[in-house]
Amino acid sequence: MKTLTILGSTGSIGRQTLDVVRHSGEQLKIHALVADKSIELIEQQARLYHPEIVVMMDEGAARELRGRLKNLPIKVDQGMTGIINSVIAPQVDTVVTAISGRIGLEPTLAALEAGKTIALANKETLVAGGDLVMSTARKMKCPILPVDSEHSAIFQCLEDNHETLEKIILTASGGPFFGWTQKQLATVTLEKALCHPNWDMGAKITIDSATMMNKGLEVIEAHYLFNMEYDQIEVLIHPQSVVHSMVQYRDGSVLAQLGRADMRLPIQYALSYPSRWKNSFERLDFRGKTLTFHEPDLEGFPALAMAYRVGRRGGTLPAVMNAANEIAVLAFLQEKVTYLKIQDIVEKVCSEHNVLDSLDLESILDADTWARRRAAELIS
Amino acid sequence: MKTLTILGSTGSIGRQTLDVVRHSGEQLKIHALVADKSIELIEQQARLYHPEIVVMMDEGAARELRGRLKNLPIKVDQGMTGIINSVIAPQVDTVVTAISGRIGLEPTLAALEAGKTIALANKETLVAGGDLVMSTARKMKCPILPVDSEHSAIFQCLEDNHETLEKIILTASGGPFFGWTQKQLATVTLEKALCHPNWDMGAKITIDSATMMNKGLEVIEAHYLFNMEYDQIEVLIHPQSVVHSMVQYRDGSVLAQLGRADMRLPIQYALSYPSRWKNSFERLDFRGKTLTFHEPDLEGFPALAMAYRVGRRGGTLPAVMNAANEIAVLAFLQEKVTYLKIQDIVEKVCSEHNVLDSLDLESILDADTWARRRAAELIS
Repeated sequence: MKTLTILGSTGSIGRQTLDVVRHSGEQLKIHALVADKSIELIEQQARLYHPEIVVMMDEGAARELRGRLKNLPIKVDQGMTGIINSVIAPQVDTVVTAISGRIGLEPTLAALEAGKTIALANKETLVAGGDLVMSTARKMKCPILPVDSEHSAIFQCLEDNHETLEKIILTASGGPFFGWTQKQLATVTLEKALCHPNWDMGAKITIDSATMMNKGLEVIEAHYLFNMEYDQIEVLIHPQSVVHSMVQYRDGSVLAQLGRADMRLPIQYALSYPSRWKNSFERLDFRGKTLTFHEPDLEGFPALAMAYRVGRRGGTLPAVMNAANEIAVLAFLQEKVTYLKIQDIVEKVCSEHNVLDSLDLESILDADTWARRRAAELIS
Repeated sequence: MKTLTILGSTGSIGRQTLDVVRHSGEQLKIHALVADKSIELIEQQARLYHPEIVVMMDEGAARELRGRLKNLPIKVDQGMTGIINSVIAPQVDTVVTAISGRIGLEPTLAALEAGKTIALANKETLVAGGDLVMSTARKMKCPILPVDSEHSAIFQCLEDNHETLEKIILTASGGPFFGWTQKQLATVTLEKALCHPNWDMGAKITIDSATMMNKGLEVIEAHYLFNMEYDQIEVLIHPQSVVHSMVQYRDGSVLAQLGRADMRLPIQYALSYPSRWKNSFERLDFRGKTLTFHEPDLEGFPALAMAYRVGRRGGTLPAVMNAANEIAVLAFLQEKVTYLKIQDIVEKVCSEHNVLDSLDLESILDADTWARRRAAELIS
């Protein structure tokens, strides 16, 4: 049996992780559930899954939850200290990092320092602190198991010998605006951007999918996770989202992982690895299926090309791009900026940044803080 | 360096195996080349690849070749005894069984008894003698590495734990008559049947692809090679032949192997396994590709459903079906019977056979001989 702490249990990945826990029989157990401030939902989750601890990022939310759960043997903790304690507890085997944004970096590093396995669904952590996170994982010999469907697909296609890899091919649905002209893209509304054709996800990643920044972040994530040069990472538009990603070996052979657009599958794989657990999730039916593949439109979706440039430059620049994007997407979700403005803001913040190559946590957090402030200035 | 004996070096797979040897640098060396009677070609091959021995099945051909090669340090041998000696020689590591038909069964068994690795491109051997071949391989701890593109694909997608496999999905191009009505199928000519849409192969397998008997033989091959129940083997029409086959795990995840329609790839993989050698073969380009998948038409192509029935019954019946098919296809190639008659003949011979379950080599060869004679009677 594995014992989990779930960072972001009330979000889309967090809820689906709990569904996997429920289906897993006696294989998985919850130590801690961590959320920002969704009191209603986390109260339900606590009553259903009996964690030892629930942590709220928000102090007021923690106070209210403490009252609601007072008759149960569940401790309620709060803030970043509470989060860190919930991941480093000795009984925890695996930390599921299902929160969105750079906020996942510190608990992920703390978990690795404490020797925990990471089920990584928080790509911003690797974008902002890839070198630091991966070197900590190597030092502590902690596996980082991908939960992103694309990276899980690649992980499932990998053979033991890393030297035989030629390239990896990240597939991308293309999002709701695949094939749109620049003129059409100028008319994008929040409502349209929130309608992803294949996947039901959180708001931030849905907007990132619409701009294709999500694929850009995934390219950088793949660079760190699989130790691949950027030239060895290719993006391929595949609107049906059946092929979740592919790997090409040096003999020309391609392995692909395919499945339904159901995040429970990569979540379960990260938790069952190296085994696979039987489940009753609906199976893929190929009969009558048509799968298409297209080159990405780098002009219509400049975030993707920008992410390659930023990733290649490295240092603090990926953290800055990610921070500016988090702020710009939030502003778009609050209808303070237009869709096309997201890219302008991120591009401008990146161009103004003095890149540092010393990658300790402090310099990453400093760059992140600066980029958030600068992006906010450009919005107001 | 691995030393090879190639059974059937002048056939389609044999020629492509030699191309792989040529591209492999110092990785592969030829001990023996074996062919039926194609003197011109095998003389060229002998001069180019410097085997120690060349074996001709046909005595007259051996005599003539001996004259042609008299100035070279190459021994010319003949007949089944010569073939057996060429595969059991101590310096041989791997035997490539690239001949077509049941004739491959005895040398394959001899090679396994001598502890050789088999690169198997001769599916009729496993159809006729699956239980015997696989139990000999297990007893001698000899790997049987598939060369058929479908079985190579499955082999590449397999993980260590056999218990996690749920099913395997063999893809089939559907051949030149995919989507044809029964009325259209009655008009099939030899010329049309010899035009495979995707693969350039030998005549026998090309006709088997047109009738879909090839896929039926592959289902039985997969049953033995991967120790799968027939219920766990599915056939899926995929006219573009890009996905070479797939494997579904018990968590619902599907792994697929993809590549160009180039047999050198699975041949090289069987010879490089467990490594992969770098090559300069053309790569698959996904941009603009459309892949479709369809349920097979079991009424239009009754050979496939028959192969499942025959495989499930087991005993000597698969050997009988294979033998009758070899004779009927040969008669079609000689324009002695029509396309639709192939199935009638095989079906009739199978229905008349008294199935034996004792599977020593003798009972298999007896059943095979009986079926060939009976099929020939039905033709004349």
